[in-house]
Amino acid sequence: MTVYQAPIADLTLALHTAGLAEVTALPGCEEVGEDLVCAILEEAGKLAAGVLAPLNPVGDRQGCHLEDGRVITPEGFPDAYRQFCEGGWNGVPFDPEYGGQGLPWLIATALQEIWQAANMAFGLAPMLTAGAVELLSRHGSDAQKALWLPRLISGEWSGTMNLTEPQAGSDLAAVRTRAEPAPDLGPDQYRVFGTKIFITHGDQDMSANIVHMVLARLPDAPPGIKGISLFIVPRLLVDAEGTLGAANDVRCVSLEHKLGIHGSPTCVMAFGDQGGAIGTLVGEANRGIEYMFTMMNNARLAVGVQGVGVAERACQAALAYAGERVQGPDVVTRKPESVTIVHHPDVRRSLMTMRALTQAARLITLATAAALDGADRHPDPEARARAEARAALLTPIAKGWSTDIAVTVANMGIQVHGGMGYVEETGAAQLLRDARITPIYEGTNGIQALDLIGRKTARDKGAALSALLADMRATQARARDTWPALADGLGRGLDDLEAARAWVLEHADPVSLQAGATPLLALAGLATGAWLLLEQALKAATLAPSRAEAHRVTASFFIGHLLPATSGHREALKAGPADLMALSPDDLASR
Amino acid sequence: MTVYQAPIADLTLALHTAGLAEVTALPGCEEVGEDLVCAILEEAGKLAAGVLAPLNPVGDRQGCHLEDGRVITPEGFPDAYRQFCEGGWNGVPFDPEYGGQGLPWLIATALQEIWQAANMAFGLAPMLTAGAVELLSRHGSDAQKALWLPRLISGEWSGTMNLTEPQAGSDLAAVRTRAEPAPDLGPDQYRVFGTKIFITHGDQDMSANIVHMVLARLPDAPPGIKGISLFIVPRLLVDAEGTLGAANDVRCVSLEHKLGIHGSPTCVMAFGDQGGAIGTLVGEANRGIEYMFTMMNNARLAVGVQGVGVAERACQAALAYAGERVQGPDVVTRKPESVTIVHHPDVRRSLMTMRALTQAARLITLATAAALDGADRHPDPEARARAEARAALLTPIAKGWSTDIAVTVANMGIQVHGGMGYVEETGAAQLLRDARITPIYEGTNGIQALDLIGRKTARDKGAALSALLADMRATQARARDTWPALADGLGRGLDDLEAARAWVLEHADPVSLQAGATPLLALAGLATGAWLLLEQALKAATLAPSRAEAHRVTASFFIGHLLPATSGHREALKAGPADLMALSPDDLASR
Repeated sequence: MTVYQAPIADLTLALHTAGLAEVTALPGCEEVGEDLVCAILEEAGKLAAGVLAPLNPVGDRQGCHLEDGRVITPEGFPDAYRQFCEGGWNGVPFDPEYGGQGLPWLIATALQEIWQAANMAFGLAPMLTAGAVELLSRHGSDAQKALWLPRLISGEWSGTMNLTEPQAGSDLAAVRTRAEPAPDLGPDQYRVFGTKIFITHGDQDMSANIVHMVLARLPDAPPGIKGISLFIVPRLLVDAEGTLGAANDVRCVSLEHKLGIHGSPTCVMAFGDQGGAIGTLVGEANRGIEYMFTMMNNARLAVGVQGVGVAERACQAALAYAGERVQGPDVVTRKPESVTIVHHPDVRRSLMTMRALTQAARLITLATAAALDGADRHPDPEARARAEARAALLTPIAKGWSTDIAVTVANMGIQVHGGMGYVEETGAAQLLRDARITPIYEGTNGIQALDLIGRKTARDKGAALSALLADMRATQARARDTWPALADGLGRGLDDLEAARAWVLEHADPVSLQAGATPLLALAGLATGAWLLLEQALKAATLAPSRAEAHRVTASFFIGHLLPATSGHREALKAGPADLMALSPDDLASR
Repeated sequence: MTVYQAPIADLTLALHTAGLAEVTALPGCEEVGEDLVCAILEEAGKLAAGVLAPLNPVGDRQGCHLEDGRVITPEGFPDAYRQFCEGGWNGVPFDPEYGGQGLPWLIATALQEIWQAANMAFGLAPMLTAGAVELLSRHGSDAQKALWLPRLISGEWSGTMNLTEPQAGSDLAAVRTRAEPAPDLGPDQYRVFGTKIFITHGDQDMSANIVHMVLARLPDAPPGIKGISLFIVPRLLVDAEGTLGAANDVRCVSLEHKLGIHGSPTCVMAFGDQGGAIGTLVGEANRGIEYMFTMMNNARLAVGVQGVGVAERACQAALAYAGERVQGPDVVTRKPESVTIVHHPDVRRSLMTMRALTQAARLITLATAAALDGADRHPDPEARARAEARAALLTPIAKGWSTDIAVTVANMGIQVHGGMGYVEETGAAQLLRDARITPIYEGTNGIQALDLIGRKTARDKGAALSALLADMRATQARARDTWPALADGLGRGLDDLEAARAWVLEHADPVSLQAGATPLLALAGLATGAWLLLEQALKAATLAPSRAEAHRVTASFFIGHLLPATSGHREALKAGPADLMALSPDDLASR
C-alpha cells in the first residue's frame, strides 16, 4: 500500500470553508488560530504517516485473536496506542479540567480524518473511548466523572459502547440484558447479565482497563425503549481512587470473522456468566437510550469521518497508481508512445469523481463539527439553538452520505488499479473491505435516512432544511458574477432539494416518509456537497491562491458531472411508496 | 449461506422476452421448444443447488494452493467438475460434430447464469474452456479441430486464455511473450517463451490436460497489435491421436491472493523456462489479436452473465434474510409488534432495486445472446448483419452494465443484512468479493464504455443505436394504451438516450468520446434495462399470468425509481472533457 500523507493544505482550506473563523470566535476557542491548527495537523500527520499507516496492512493481514480469554491485537498496535496517548491525541476535544485539550470539535474532526485515513481499524479504539467520555461528561455524576474521565481522556483506560444484542440491532427497544440492584455491594451498584454482540474493541491488549457503557433493563423497568438504563461496567474492578482490582464478570467469548477492519476486534461479550458483572448506574434509571442519543451526533459524525478518511486514502492510492502505470497512447497529444493512465480521460473521470466526492464529504463532516461547536459554546442562546438544529440536520448526511461515497470511492479505487486492484497486495481492496462497515454501524444508512426525513425534516416542518437552503442560495448568489455557470448549476440542484422538501411536507405520512428516505439523503448529500465545494472554491481565491484553480475545477466537475443526479433522486422520491409496497414478500421472490 | 434455487420461471419468461421464438425459428434450433428448455433448466438447477452451490463457501474458505508445482483446488471441486462434464453441460452451445449439444447461445446463456450464481469460482473453469473452443472452432485447422475440440467440449481437457502480461493489460499491443519456429519438432511447431499473469485456471487438478491459448510474437513480427500471433500450448504434450505425453515447459509459478473467487486459481504462468514451451500456431501469423476479438463478444457476454448470476444469488440471500430478521414495528399496519424487516419501506427499496436491476441485466444478457444466435445462424444475410450489429452494440452494455450492477446489488445485499452482512459467515460479503472482479476482467468496464461509444456508436454514425432505439420506441408505443404512465416514463429515458446519441455524433473527437464513455454506458444500460423490463411485463400478461402483476410492478419500479437517473448521466456526458482534463496530474494530488 502506498504511503499516506495527511492533506494539511486541503484540510486547512476545508476548515476555513466549514467555519474556522466562526469557531475560533467562540468562548474558549480564542487561541485556535491558523498557525496552531497547522502545527497540530502537521504533528498528527507525522504520527499518522510514520506509525499508524504502516500498521494498516499489518492489522489487515494478522487480525486479532483470542488467547486464554483475552484479545490479542496485531503486532505494533499496543505500541502505536501508547504513542498516540502520549502525544495527547486521545483527549483533543475534551474538558481540560479532566486532562483534555479543550479544542473545538472542528479541529478534532480534522484530526479524526487523519487517524482514520491512516489506519481505520486502529482509529476505532479512540473513537469508542470518545463516546464513553462524552456520555460520562454529560450524564455522569461528579464522582463518576472524577473517577473515570481522567483515565479515559488520557487513554490509559479505553471505552466501549455495548448496545447491540442478537435480537436488538436497529431496534434497541428489544434489549434484554438485565441489571439487578446489588445493595450488598454498595449504593448504585448493580449486577449485569446478558450477551452483547458487535462490540468494537470489547477486549484488547492496548489499554490498562476497558470501561464498558452497557444498556440494560432494571427488573421493574417498563417495556420498550423507555425501560432501558445505562451502566458503567469495567473489565477490571476499580476502587474509588481508581486502583485496578479483580477482574469483573465480563469477557469476550468470541471474535467475529469480518470482511474488513481486521485489526479491530469485534467481540461477542458475555456479562454475568459467573454471578453478575458489577456495574454502576449512569444518571437516572430508564433514561439510557436518551443518554445514548445525546452522544449519537458525535459518534455518527465520527463514522462519517471514517468514510472521508478511507476515501482520501483511496484517492491517494489510485492517483499514485495511475501516475505510474503505463498503458496505451495519449489520446490528447495523439503521440504513439504509451503513457501513464492518468492521461486517459476515462481514468480521469474516476480520479476526479473520487476527489470531488471525498472533498465534498470532508466539507460536510467539518461543517457538522462546526455546528456542534456552535451548539456547545455559542454565548447567544438563539445562535446555539440554530447551530444545534444545523448539527442535527447535517449529522445524518455526514454519516450516511459520507460513508456511502466512501464505498463508492474505494470501489472506484480498485477499478483504477485494474487487475492489480483485485490482488490484496496493493491494498486497494482492503480500503473497500474496511470502508464497507461504515454504512452499517452507528445506525445503518437506512436509519440515517429515516432520521433525516422524519425527525430532522418532517418534524420541524422543514425549518432546519429551509435555513440550510438559505445559506446555500447565498453562496449561489455570491458566485453568480464570477462563475455564472457554476451558480446556475448549483441552483438547479437546489431547486431539486427545494422540491424534495416541499414533497416531504406534503407527504408526511410514515409510509411515504420511509419510502422517500434514501432518495432524500442522496439528494441532500449531493446538494450540500456541491454548495460547500463552491464555497471552498470561492474561499480558495483569497486563502489558497496557488490552489485556487484546482478547487474551482473540482467544484465545477462536481456541479457539472455529479450534481445533475439530483433530478433522478427527486423523481424517485416523488414516485412514492406504491411500487415499493405493492408486492407481497412472497411475490418478491425469484421463481 | 442460503440455498440457491435456479429461478426457472423467471428465466423462462426472460428467454421469451429476449427472443426465444425468433431463435427457435433459426436453422438447427427447431427442436428447442419451451418444454425442452424448461427440462434443461430444471436439470441444471438440480446440479447447481445440489452440488455447486454448497461448494461455494467451501471454495471461498479453502481457496487454492500450490503443491509440488501443481495447483490444488478446493475439496469437492474436482468431483463437481466430473459431474458437470458427465452431464454434458460443458458442451451445450458447441458443434454436435465434435460432441457438443448444438444448442443456441440463448439457452447456453441462461444455463451460464445458473452455474455462475451457484458458484462463480467454479463456473470460471468451463467459461474459459468455452473461449478456447470458440477460438479453435473459428480459426483452427481441421486437424487442430479434430485433435482438440472433442476433448475440450467434453471437458476432459480444459482451456485457458493467456493474454495479459505485467506490462500488457488493457493494452495488448505491449505483449512481449515470444514464439520461435521449431522446425526440428515438425511443421507449425514453435517454442514459446514468456510470462503471463492473471491466468484464470492456468493450472488445476480438475481436468486431465490444460490447453493454453497464448498470445506471443514471432521473431520477425511487426511491432504493436499487428504483430501478435496465437498459439496452442498444452500442459501435457499430446500426439496426433490425443494420447497424453510428457509435461510441456509451462508451469504455474505463483497464485494471486485475491479479494474473492478464492476457489478459482489465478496463476502467474511461466512459459519456456526449461528451453521452450512447445506450441502450434493457430491460423495465420500476426492475426492473433483479430482471432481473440472474434471470440471476445461471447467471453464478454459470459462475464456479464456472471454479474447477473451473483446478483441473483444476492437477491435470494437478502430476501431470505429480510423475511426472517425481526426488527421494529410495521409502519403500514401501525401495530406495535415487531415484524420482519421485509415490511419496512426502506428495506423494500433495497430489495426492489436489487430485483429490478438483476432482472434488467438478465434481459440484457439474454437479448445479447439471442442476437449472437441470429448473427450465427440466420439464413438471410441482411438479418445476420442486423443481428451482428445488435450483438456488437449490446455486448459492452451486457458486460459493463451487468457487472456494475452486480457490485451494486451485492453491496446492497450486505446492507440488507445489517451487521450480519459484514460477518463472513452469512456469505453476503463473499458475493461482493466475488462480484468485484467482474467489472475488471475480460476488458475493464472502462474499456467496455470506450467500445460502446467509439466502435459501436461513433464509428457507424449511430446506426446500430438508432435501430435499437426504434425497437425501444415500438415497445413504448405498444404499452401506451395499457400503461400510459410506464410508456411515458420509458419515453423520457429514451429521450435522454437519443440526446446522448446526438451528442456523440456531434462530438466524435477522441477526447470527447473517451470522456463521455462511462456516462453513455450507464445511460444505455438503464434505458435498455427499462425497455426490456417493460417488454417482459407485456409478455407476462399472456405467458405468466400468475406473475404478471409482479413483473408489472418490477417494470414500474425500475421506470419510476431508477430510470430517471438517465438525466444525470446525460448531463455528465454533455459536460464534456473540460473539467476532466483541466488539472495537471500534479494538481490532482491532495496537499
